[in-house]
Amino acid sequence: MFRDESEFVRWLQARAPRGNSHLKLGIGDDAALVEVRRGHELILTTDMSIEEVHFSPRLHSPRSVGHRALARSLSDIAAMGGTPRYALVSLALSRSAKRAWVNAFYEGLLALAQAFKVSLIGGDTAAVSGSTLIDVLVAGEILRGRALRRSSARPGELLYVSGRLGWSALGLRLLESQPRERASGKLARVRTQGASRMPWAEPACAPEAIQAHLYPQPQCALGRYLAVRRLATAMIDLSDGLSTDLNRLCEASGVGARVWPERLPQPYLEDPHDSLQLALHGGEDYQLLFTVDPRQASRLPARFRRIPLHHIGEITRAKKVVLRQATGREKTLRPQGYDHFRRFKVSW
Amino acid sequence: MFRDESEFVRWLQARAPRGNSHLKLGIGDDAALVEVRRGHELILTTDMSIEEVHFSPRLHSPRSVGHRALARSLSDIAAMGGTPRYALVSLALSRSAKRAWVNAFYEGLLALAQAFKVSLIGGDTAAVSGSTLIDVLVAGEILRGRALRRSSARPGELLYVSGRLGWSALGLRLLESQPRERASGKLARVRTQGASRMPWAEPACAPEAIQAHLYPQPQCALGRYLAVRRLATAMIDLSDGLSTDLNRLCEASGVGARVWPERLPQPYLEDPHDSLQLALHGGEDYQLLFTVDPRQASRLPARFRRIPLHHIGEITRAKKVVLRQATGREKTLRPQGYDHFRRFKVSW
Repeated sequence: MFRDESEFVRWLQARAPRGNSHLKLGIGDDAALVEVRRGHELILTTDMSIEEVHFSPRLHSPRSVGHRALARSLSDIAAMGGTPRYALVSLALSRSAKRAWVNAFYEGLLALAQAFKVSLIGGDTAAVSGSTLIDVLVAGEILRGRALRRSSARPGELLYVSGRLGWSALGLRLLESQPRERASGKLARVRTQGASRMPWAEPACAPEAIQAHLYPQPQCALGRYLAVRRLATAMIDLSDGLSTDLNRLCEASGVGARVWPERLPQPYLEDPHDSLQLALHGGEDYQLLFTVDPRQASRLPARFRRIPLHHIGEITRAKKVVLRQATGREKTLRPQGYDHFRRFKVSW
Repeated sequence: MFRDESEFVRWLQARAPRGNSHLKLGIGDDAALVEVRRGHELILTTDMSIEEVHFSPRLHSPRSVGHRALARSLSDIAAMGGTPRYALVSLALSRSAKRAWVNAFYEGLLALAQAFKVSLIGGDTAAVSGSTLIDVLVAGEILRGRALRRSSARPGELLYVSGRLGWSALGLRLLESQPRERASGKLARVRTQGASRMPWAEPACAPEAIQAHLYPQPQCALGRYLAVRRLATAMIDLSDGLSTDLNRLCEASGVGARVWPERLPQPYLEDPHDSLQLALHGGEDYQLLFTVDPRQASRLPARFRRIPLHHIGEITRAKKVVLRQATGREKTLRPQGYDHFRRFKVSW
């Protein structure tokens, strides 16, 4: 693997993006040393990515695993309205993993870090007898007092979601159903062969959905925009599906919500029921779900950069989340996204 | 285990120590929010504790596992001269673990957190099919410009170590050699039966050594004292044994060192060679190894609180670490502590 500790540290130092003037001391000492800018608060979040829970070597290339492991934590910073600055990566690597896997894993992780100007400043690495596990800590900054919580939604506020829902779950379904040779890294090659040569039926949005699953883009710029301009009142990121995360936001705020299903930005599938299920319960979209004071709604643009902002419902006093159908009938929307608890998986 | 996510979060919130006025938002949102005091820098460090690498259910009670997992990261903060403030704990729990294990694990971790006024502000929890793994991130603070690095030792400086060396390794050896019913949690009960009833030979310092192994005390107050008063010039914590960590300090500083073996605070064993080997290569003592400018040496007390500070050697220009015996002969001291690399275990 690596000859010794120094070799690994030098290898990482050569790859870790630099150029952050607030970083005083990075990889290689007992701990990292950074400066938090005056008038700012520090945001800290950590997320594990576990083989056969969050990723599978059959479906996810190591590059995608690295990207997704960091994206999970970046999305938590986005959900507070913050700017991610630093990452620490703990990698418990299965003994069966090869050096090439480690190379590509860090390539994926560091490419995303560079895109978000995040410095890799530390971590821990070990070989383990079981599955590979990655724990990523991200530290971010936000102007004092501007962080958006999930607990501050109030009845009467408007409910918005960014981007698209259910695309990552659709991408995962496509990856799972496809012949093995098309999995993960081989996608680009197969796409160039043209759709007519694909031996299985897929919707027109397949390549985009697979990309959304393998390389999700955390909405940090949007989160910061909503927080700094005080456009949103509460916010959460969609990591476990709308039905689960909306219920979390409502529970934390002591409110309920009414969602209009026809407003949800669903994937285009032949079966509209299937589309809706993906939009309601599909996880890992890493979009932002936020609430807006109706008096501020006119200040909210229809798009932020190229990301559409959809008005999908409203916050209610009744402490339950309902879907309001076009007929006027209401149906309770229970958490049915990625079930943290059947697998005893808790983010806190 | 836990019925749902809310139950787990409430359970933890009820146990997590509070009272930190700089904590804006703890467990329960997308991320935690803290304030770093003006004129201070932030220290970040993360360390994994892995079943059958760092602990074994045969030897370590869950209370000790929790204590040790946090102690590793606190010691890194101590090594920078900082004050630990916040912890995030990622727990990948073996499916075979019981609720009682989780309870006692957090009890041990939170008792140490409380003793060091560290707030548990977040984390991640999941069940895994393999071994249990814990990753602890600690964030600390230090006055701007006062952090002690491992790279700033200069030739001619004096080399010091705090406390005792080799006691944790001795404690581990005693735990491994003892009958199963005496392991970990049962220690207190057996000790009350009196030494005469112990069926195996042990040195007089056995209970202290076992305590040092199961419940190591990170030297945060000493580290802060040395940093804030500018008494030390470089510092590292002894997690992997003197021979390994001293070589790291020397390599980072581009210097060498000469160590006088008779000055090392060794455990009292019948075989003096055995004592010395434990002091040189035994890991997990979590003492501080630091260098002092000779012009400042008179300002350094013989003890800090009740911890003795031992002058064990000097920093040299020649880039190697040697043991200087009473006869005047010198012998190279190579890293032989806990071998990170045979197990591919890298802290960075």
